[in-house]
Amino acid sequence: MYERIPKEGSSYSRWFDYVMEKAELYDYGRYPVKGCGIWLPYGFKIRRFVLNYMRKLLDETGHEEILMPLLVPEDLLSKEKEHIEGFKGEVYWVTKGGEEDLDVKLALRPTSETVISLYESYWIKSYKQLPKKYYQIVNIFRYETKATKPMIRVREVTTFKEAHTIHETYEDAEKQVIEAINIYKKFFDTLGIPYLISKRPDWDKFAGALYTIAFDTIMPDGKTLQIGTVHNLGQNFTKVFEVKIQLSDESIDYAWQTSYGISERVIAALISVHGDDLGLILPPEFAPIQVVIVPIPIKDVWDKILKTSKDVYERLKRNNIRVHLDDRKEYSPGYKFYDWELRGVPLRIEIGSKEISTGTVTLADRLERKRKQVPLDEVVKHVKEELLKIGERIRERARQWFRTKIFRVKDLEEARKVLSEARGVLEIPWCGKEECGHAFEEILEAKVLGSPLPTIEEVNVDDAKCPICGEKAATLIRLAKQY
Amino acid sequence: MYERIPKEGSSYSRWFDYVMEKAELYDYGRYPVKGCGIWLPYGFKIRRFVLNYMRKLLDETGHEEILMPLLVPEDLLSKEKEHIEGFKGEVYWVTKGGEEDLDVKLALRPTSETVISLYESYWIKSYKQLPKKYYQIVNIFRYETKATKPMIRVREVTTFKEAHTIHETYEDAEKQVIEAINIYKKFFDTLGIPYLISKRPDWDKFAGALYTIAFDTIMPDGKTLQIGTVHNLGQNFTKVFEVKIQLSDESIDYAWQTSYGISERVIAALISVHGDDLGLILPPEFAPIQVVIVPIPIKDVWDKILKTSKDVYERLKRNNIRVHLDDRKEYSPGYKFYDWELRGVPLRIEIGSKEISTGTVTLADRLERKRKQVPLDEVVKHVKEELLKIGERIRERARQWFRTKIFRVKDLEEARKVLSEARGVLEIPWCGKEECGHAFEEILEAKVLGSPLPTIEEVNVDDAKCPICGEKAATLIRLAKQY
Repeated sequence: MYERIPKEGSSYSRWFDYVMEKAELYDYGRYPVKGCGIWLPYGFKIRRFVLNYMRKLLDETGHEEILMPLLVPEDLLSKEKEHIEGFKGEVYWVTKGGEEDLDVKLALRPTSETVISLYESYWIKSYKQLPKKYYQIVNIFRYETKATKPMIRVREVTTFKEAHTIHETYEDAEKQVIEAINIYKKFFDTLGIPYLISKRPDWDKFAGALYTIAFDTIMPDGKTLQIGTVHNLGQNFTKVFEVKIQLSDESIDYAWQTSYGISERVIAALISVHGDDLGLILPPEFAPIQVVIVPIPIKDVWDKILKTSKDVYERLKRNNIRVHLDDRKEYSPGYKFYDWELRGVPLRIEIGSKEISTGTVTLADRLERKRKQVPLDEVVKHVKEELLKIGERIRERARQWFRTKIFRVKDLEEARKVLSEARGVLEIPWCGKEECGHAFEEILEAKVLGSPLPTIEEVNVDDAKCPICGEKAATLIRLAKQY
Repeated sequence: MYERIPKEGSSYSRWFDYVMEKAELYDYGRYPVKGCGIWLPYGFKIRRFVLNYMRKLLDETGHEEILMPLLVPEDLLSKEKEHIEGFKGEVYWVTKGGEEDLDVKLALRPTSETVISLYESYWIKSYKQLPKKYYQIVNIFRYETKATKPMIRVREVTTFKEAHTIHETYEDAEKQVIEAINIYKKFFDTLGIPYLISKRPDWDKFAGALYTIAFDTIMPDGKTLQIGTVHNLGQNFTKVFEVKIQLSDESIDYAWQTSYGISERVIAALISVHGDDLGLILPPEFAPIQVVIVPIPIKDVWDKILKTSKDVYERLKRNNIRVHLDDRKEYSPGYKFYDWELRGVPLRIEIGSKEISTGTVTLADRLERKRKQVPLDEVVKHVKEELLKIGERIRERARQWFRTKIFRVKDLEEARKVLSEARGVLEIPWCGKEECGHAFEEILEAKVLGSPLPTIEEVNVDDAKCPICGEKAATLIRLAKQY
């Protein structure tokens, strides 16, 4: 019934598809439009917890939630030249309404910088209104030509959180970039998804931005996944959309913008980073069910077992723990154990004749799969403690694994070895020239993630040399096989 | 600065656009795609409270939230013949991806019966899995040819809650229709939006349904607004999508479905039903700000006033009351009063020198705009009591007004008079024949809403006759000018 698929290494992709399907997260691959799927109830609940946490972080830092139109007329989308150049190959176009041809083609938004800039040109007149921080959580569309993969590379991105901010000065926008990075750090730290923060090279920044900062995590097969980006947009959009404001010194100038986004890739990462060969492992904060109670059917004491199980259920529920009592008769306890392990429920409570006779319950944690007995009358306290501990251990385990996947190397020989054997992220000295960046990509058949941010990490390259041109290194460059 | 526009009667439309704009709910009419707008932060918050309440009602009745694809291929949308006939005139079509023409046209979902039925054909095999109740809250699209109106008749319906259920038998589907009606009743009762429940005539049912039950409210100009619908779909979709299941008697048959929906029209109704000539009046349950504190600047005691205001703010906040302290220096108290009245904040607290010297605060309610003083140290208790009372009074006022807008008439003369003078809903005896229904519509230049549901309301037509054909009336028919 249940398979055990090695999560790490080359079987990761099979593992991922397997848990998607068996844990009933997201039904993918049988809808007649490629790259589109459906969120199933269990997956949707995980998504709700993750998004609610993101909303909390944004709301408490002064971001305001809004909802913009999906349809973007061609001329609006095309106003910023770099922007449309970057997106035009992957935009879906609506050309008909009913039986009629539309006068103007309408894009399904690939992102909403152009829409918010249009509105800001109506709304924002003075520095006194600034800063303004908006966000929305919506679906966006990309006509991907590459192979699609559920939640990771899709044509309907169902879960795009895009924030858009506007400021009086360049310095304010720079500060906002830092705030955004700090919000995302807190977000990913709580989810337990480890990351590297890199400044994307100029040739890979967001179309229309001054620069792009990206969060990358590492998947179980050693490939990186971009899970968040932060863009300083400068005045690129405010100039073409005429978002002119009165400054505090009474002069008139274009405003400054940033934008930053995450998508359902966060959930793909949450699943992939924490799971094991048996299925999901969910941090309790984001688990739809935190505790499952499985009564062990023993004929003579069944009534008592069931009564105790219900009692424990009620006590946990009263304490706001998301608990489920699995009293289905048609399945064996062993089947139920596997079933809930697959779904990543962090803690299981077993109640059988032994527990009844000793006035205890057995707790089994999903991460280490160890059992322990605790007194029945202290079950709430122990469950709370265990959930806290499991959450911490899940996160710590992810951090430890992540550290083993980052390799600082000095030359191309070492670099090749890492990419072919260990897989993960390379950090290699770099002179800073674009041509050497491209050379790395070609020689190593990997993607440049960018360089560490000096404001976030100290980088010491000593007297290292760029292995491409032999010149003195200015920084490190990160490379990886990338999703 | 602020206008006072009569909400009722012919200026309603101007009133509605005015509060939309001034209360910053929804920016409409200046986006280059007709029928599309943007939810602003304050409007979005109202939407959040309304949707969270709907989610609560659905979750606690066993509905599961999911998320389906937006894009529906032409052949999928066309499978059920009545369905596509009903929708084909108002579907937006995606025909291009990037520079390429798509092989198959993709509709922007006008509703999702076809998509869920396809998935149910994969998922549902046995009566043991049933009933299943799904819902999603998404944007849908209608290429409307009629004049658009914000939140009421739009091309991007941004807020469509659609529920889809599937059952073993016709009887189970019928029971589900009743459950859906009861959920909506509770929902609208809590929002304080009065309604009539009518069975739509056959010629106006949902395309593909056996029959449609609709909730209609009455807007301040006397026109009705459809705010919710419940459809018994029978086996119409399960037959064409081959959703065959094993029944409890081991035979095989097509399953039975219902669907039911609401949209942002609920919010248009919430605003319109409760507001007055000064702007919004929000029931406290759905008000982003329940209490606003306005300190009255008096030079000598300003520090004390501000300190007391902050103290009251903290105490209310600790009690989970959504409170805002308006300590802006650049605006007068009078301006602030109008500003928050426009936005519908149910309760205002004024703190000035009189209040400081007497150890009181002044409460002013938005509905009756009456002031009263309460002891400072009991402010939390009084605010809680007032909020409860205001909520009840808001709902009662709406019910009372609604009752005055329903007219039971006997003949066409009376009917004409009501429609031209009083405006509202007519109830008139009807034989039950479709041709007489159409005749009513033509003669009275009004829309048939349908007939009362005998399961919900008792209808007694005694010996009344249908004024069109003169035959004995079987029931009442409702007519109104309709949005």
